[in-house]
Amino acid sequence: MAAGKGTRMKSSLPKVLHRLGGRALVAHVVDTAARVGARHVVVVTGHGATDVEAALGEGVAGVVPQFARQVPQLGTGHAMQQAVPLLPDDGTVVVLSGDVPLIGEATLRDLIAQSAGRRLALLTIEAENPTGYGRIVRAPAADPDTEGEVQAIVEEKDASETQRAIREIYTGVMAVPTQLLRPWLARLDNRNAQGEYYLTDVVGFATIDGVPVVAHRVEDPLEVAGINTPAQLAALERAYQRRQADALLEQGVRLADPARIDVRGSLVCEADVEIDVNCVFEGAVSLGAGVRVGANCVIANARIDTGAIIHPFTHIDGEKAGATVGVGALVGPFARLRPGARLGPEVHIGNFVEIKNSTLAAGAKANHLAYLGDATVGERVNYGAGSITANYDGAHKHRTVIGDDVHIGSNCVLVAPITIGAGGTIGGGSTVTKSTEPGGLTISRSRQVSYPNWKRPKK
Amino acid sequence: MAAGKGTRMKSSLPKVLHRLGGRALVAHVVDTAARVGARHVVVVTGHGATDVEAALGEGVAGVVPQFARQVPQLGTGHAMQQAVPLLPDDGTVVVLSGDVPLIGEATLRDLIAQSAGRRLALLTIEAENPTGYGRIVRAPAADPDTEGEVQAIVEEKDASETQRAIREIYTGVMAVPTQLLRPWLARLDNRNAQGEYYLTDVVGFATIDGVPVVAHRVEDPLEVAGINTPAQLAALERAYQRRQADALLEQGVRLADPARIDVRGSLVCEADVEIDVNCVFEGAVSLGAGVRVGANCVIANARIDTGAIIHPFTHIDGEKAGATVGVGALVGPFARLRPGARLGPEVHIGNFVEIKNSTLAAGAKANHLAYLGDATVGERVNYGAGSITANYDGAHKHRTVIGDDVHIGSNCVLVAPITIGAGGTIGGGSTVTKSTEPGGLTISRSRQVSYPNWKRPKK
Amino acid sequence: MAAGKGTRMKSSLPKVLHRLGGRALVAHVVDTAARVGARHVVVVTGHGATDVEAALGEGVAGVVPQFARQVPQLGTGHAMQQAVPLLPDDGTVVVLSGDVPLIGEATLRDLIAQSAGRRLALLTIEAENPTGYGRIVRAPAADPDTEGEVQAIVEEKDASETQRAIREIYTGVMAVPTQLLRPWLARLDNRNAQGEYYLTDVVGFATIDGVPVVAHRVEDPLEVAGINTPAQLAALERAYQRRQADALLEQGVRLADPARIDVRGSLVCEADVEIDVNCVFEGAVSLGAGVRVGANCVIANARIDTGAIIHPFTHIDGEKAGATVGVGALVGPFARLRPGARLGPEVHIGNFVEIKNSTLAAGAKANHLAYLGDATVGERVNYGAGSITANYDGAHKHRTVIGDDVHIGSNCVLVAPITIGAGGTIGGGSTVTKSTEPGGLTISRSRQVSYPNWKRPKK
Repeated sequence: MAAGKGTRMKSSLPKVLHRLGGRALVAHVVDTAARVGARHVVVVTGHGATDVEAALGEGVAGVVPQFARQVPQLGTGHAMQQAVPLLPDDGTVVVLSGDVPLIGEATLRDLIAQSAGRRLALLTIEAENPTGYGRIVRAPAADPDTEGEVQAIVEEKDASETQRAIREIYTGVMAVPTQLLRPWLARLDNRNAQGEYYLTDVVGFATIDGVPVVAHRVEDPLEVAGINTPAQLAALERAYQRRQADALLEQGVRLADPARIDVRGSLVCEADVEIDVNCVFEGAVSLGAGVRVGANCVIANARIDTGAIIHPFTHIDGEKAGATVGVGALVGPFARLRPGARLGPEVHIGNFVEIKNSTLAAGAKANHLAYLGDATVGERVNYGAGSITANYDGAHKHRTVIGDDVHIGSNCVLVAPITIGAGGTIGGGSTVTKSTEPGGLTISRSRQVSYPNWKRPKK
Repeated sequence: MAAGKGTRMKSSLPKVLHRLGGRALVAHVVDTAARVGARHVVVVTGHGATDVEAALGEGVAGVVPQFARQVPQLGTGHAMQQAVPLLPDDGTVVVLSGDVPLIGEATLRDLIAQSAGRRLALLTIEAENPTGYGRIVRAPAADPDTEGEVQAIVEEKDASETQRAIREIYTGVMAVPTQLLRPWLARLDNRNAQGEYYLTDVVGFATIDGVPVVAHRVEDPLEVAGINTPAQLAALERAYQRRQADALLEQGVRLADPARIDVRGSLVCEADVEIDVNCVFEGAVSLGAGVRVGANCVIANARIDTGAIIHPFTHIDGEKAGATVGVGALVGPFARLRPGARLGPEVHIGNFVEIKNSTLAAGAKANHLAYLGDATVGERVNYGAGSITANYDGAHKHRTVIGDDVHIGSNCVLVAPITIGAGGTIGGGSTVTKSTEPGGLTISRSRQVSYPNWKRPKK
Repeated sequence: MAAGKGTRMKSSLPKVLHRLGGRALVAHVVDTAARVGARHVVVVTGHGATDVEAALGEGVAGVVPQFARQVPQLGTGHAMQQAVPLLPDDGTVVVLSGDVPLIGEATLRDLIAQSAGRRLALLTIEAENPTGYGRIVRAPAADPDTEGEVQAIVEEKDASETQRAIREIYTGVMAVPTQLLRPWLARLDNRNAQGEYYLTDVVGFATIDGVPVVAHRVEDPLEVAGINTPAQLAALERAYQRRQADALLEQGVRLADPARIDVRGSLVCEADVEIDVNCVFEGAVSLGAGVRVGANCVIANARIDTGAIIHPFTHIDGEKAGATVGVGALVGPFARLRPGARLGPEVHIGNFVEIKNSTLAAGAKANHLAYLGDATVGERVNYGAGSITANYDGAHKHRTVIGDDVHIGSNCVLVAPITIGAGGTIGGGSTVTKSTEPGGLTISRSRQVSYPNWKRPKK
């Protein structure tokens, strides 16, 4: 269910498209449904339907959902009335909320097992403060070791004082065989104060029809935490990040501060990885054995190989093209790797250096204030401070090829397309516009002239 | 009251000039007094009086306080004896502490209402641990639903065991009609262990004179939290920042981590603003609708327009001149905008680029390792990597004007004063000292020469 | 004792070499032993012995430990059997764990005083949850004001229900006269389920021999917190950092956020130092009076003199050579000082500037996008934006000397070895290869040529 507006988010973005851990809330839910093995994922859209459908249209983890538009929105039962026609008769419907992103795979499997093709299974939780939520009313237990069967979900406003004291509440998640749900949905009515069709009315129909209603309690409140406000989103984000940090620690990753790491996507770490304070990881990032990431790095869509060291204040984002850092490479501080940066083993990228769509072979170095764009750089090249590949002529991008063992001096401009032959040296301050042969020295430099009597302007 | 030294701060700075949220403690108090509508704000100065008076001399939020020097410091009553002669007879004196910065406007309005032109109104609080504070001793209550009238403030050392168990304490804040206070101050004496004149003695005079003494309890301990040590200051800073974060969330701002944002000044956000972890805002900053601020940004005295994206590691400080980022502009990572940076719509400022006192028109780009100072840059200009405006001749700053659609190559130097005509191209590596006509290509470049037999030095 | 593998760390690094506050766990312990005045420090090594011995081989705080190899590891008693032969008879053995890094100097002094040359003194603690730890079983107390003597340490698995309720546990730390310990170690056997020699069996021998066994309770659980997992290490790191932050506040240092500072080494601050959020200090750093460090700085092995201001995003690491920032200097934002950077008074280093092995005299400025390596820079020099010292010819590093009052233009290259005479000016865009005389203007610049009919490539 992803049709709500989320007025309390105070945002023009539909609520379910707000992001947790870098991913839309509803995408978390679709992903979990996929991991549980859903044959069909139907997303009920309404407010911002076009945006929600566009966001999910390319699928999540390979699963492309179907969409059921709910216009206007007449309640949770009405939402399901739009969705269920898209489903086959021989399955189990699991009702999930697009704004409850952290529902667990195991929990859903348990819930489906409780439904067992013949029961209505409700996911419940023992709430610290149940106020405002529908209470789970059970029949008296048959014996002291078991719990009584569920008789009803009673809304706050309809609850007796005794019922209000019940702390077990309904979470909005249920599993029910499609064949049972379909006729119940047809029986819903909207004769209530809100004029809405409530899905929870099916509990009553189940009781009438003699279908067992079971409740499966979830222990972890984060799994059923819903998002209604930016404050709730921020709190859930921190809880989510803390869990990811704990999982990394559990794997053996050393974190300088588990409260100061953000992982928005997947961070895969081999052995003996160290991550200093205040790093952010986005998209798919993998860190090889012994990799050390310094303080204040932002790393996205990248592979860092074994033993590489990423110094503080490094920004890497490979976007779709990816970025790779080779074995034992050193990067930063204040380095930036952009899409298509491919650093070979033992490459050194130093401060105030930007690399874009360029391959650097083993042992190449660009240590200071430099730009390499659309370049192929050979082994052991030393690319001087302040040097720039002029890869853009105002209309097209061109390639720079630098052979093995080349030494590029300081503040050079290499005007692409150009090839610097292997072993060559480019003198400092040269603007090189024609390709050079291997070896030798190439310079483009004016004579140095002094004017001894020249006086500097005075204030 | 701002005369104390604050020995426990272990600082040469007078205590009330220590900053919370980027602003002197006493300035918070003066500002609150102004917002409550104080006709006169009198600051009692003593230790570091010159510094305190200088810091407040230009006023706070438009209110210029008067100063009453208290030399030597002979107690709170003595402090008020210095201040009250500066006040007219027809008002209410509100006594505030310069080291209690977060006293609330609403609280003071309530307290003044309690005083009502005829009562002594004390601000009190129910303390977790009242040890060391003056207890509020009340008469027996007339009926169970009301509290008894205040009879006295009893200091710790004078308190009976029963009185010590009282948790309601005096906060140091009171409101009292000036006409009542003036004669009471004259009656104070210093016949006590400290040899000081205690303002709290006026409670006794009120009782003697038959003036009602009322207590107004404040719920929020932060409002009356005083600063005596750096640890207390740091703790209050974090509480203050957390409140500001909560207020931003409440407005709909999305914060990646409410515990990792610092706002020192005013941060005004339109709809759908997102702020990533670890950002610092100073002075007056406003963010337009849909603005996204990446991780680890420091932004001060700036306006960021609708839809602009500020990438991580961006440092913006407009200081007095201000800095503006236009609609849909992209800035960073590793960009720095200095005073007078004026970026038009869709401007792109990339990594390791510094902009100072320069205007960039719509669509201009400076994406890599560049400096623009004292420049006027036209629309759609592409300012090449490594290029520099040489704006300073050692004595004076000069202006660079770059026409629309100009393409500046890489590693150029534009020696100001200079104008590059619209549509022109400057070849990479050129040092341009004379203005150019519109269109065409201008270069300043030596012939490229190769020495095939040259050998690089060996280790 | 530093022989354990630490399997739960999931690391190839021996457990005791994991770092807390930037220093190996075992190095903390050796340092504390040294500060307590240990005449001999014997480290029992086993797993990763070579690495551990190498890490400690150069000593800690001037103390070079001896090593006793324990191969295979047959228990704590066996470990001591390897170590004690290296110790003289006339002392007291203090048994410490290499993975319990924060044991306090005062605690050890107290424990040694309890041992008093004639008793077995055990360090104990009242645990919240004693499960899994050896309980301290005491004889009934002689009178209600004293505690009974220690009779035994009973392991979890051997404990009666009454004993399991005991919350006083053994911490693994003991002090015992060498002359008593030596024969007890000889009496240990391994007739137990694990087949190990347990050091705790000496309690039984003491009782048999009539040697008093005393327990010294430590109040602070951090002192005896052991590290077994990355999560425990991270938690102890945060507790350790928080304590260091509290100690800095106590001294009068102003911290913007005590939860966001990391000190890994020693940070010495004079009066009125301010440190903004998210800074990291490593090695030996000292900050003079009034120094302000902006947000997100990383500072290692450096001295910052009185009144200097370090702006945000500054990275300083002097490594072994050190780095110094002079009185009133301004550094950053986005500056990097490397080993051997020596900034005189009032020096200004601005954004995207790197300084390595260079001395800048009073008032010198390098404000924008520049590199100074192996340079000696005179007073009041203005080093232009984009300028580079070409200090490396591919084989050797050479020195650049810039006289007082020199003005280096923008985007210059100074090809070392070279001297720029005092008072000289180098024109923007010049590559200077020959030393210049004092005064005057030196340029290396091509004629500016325009091609009015040239057309820029089109897309």
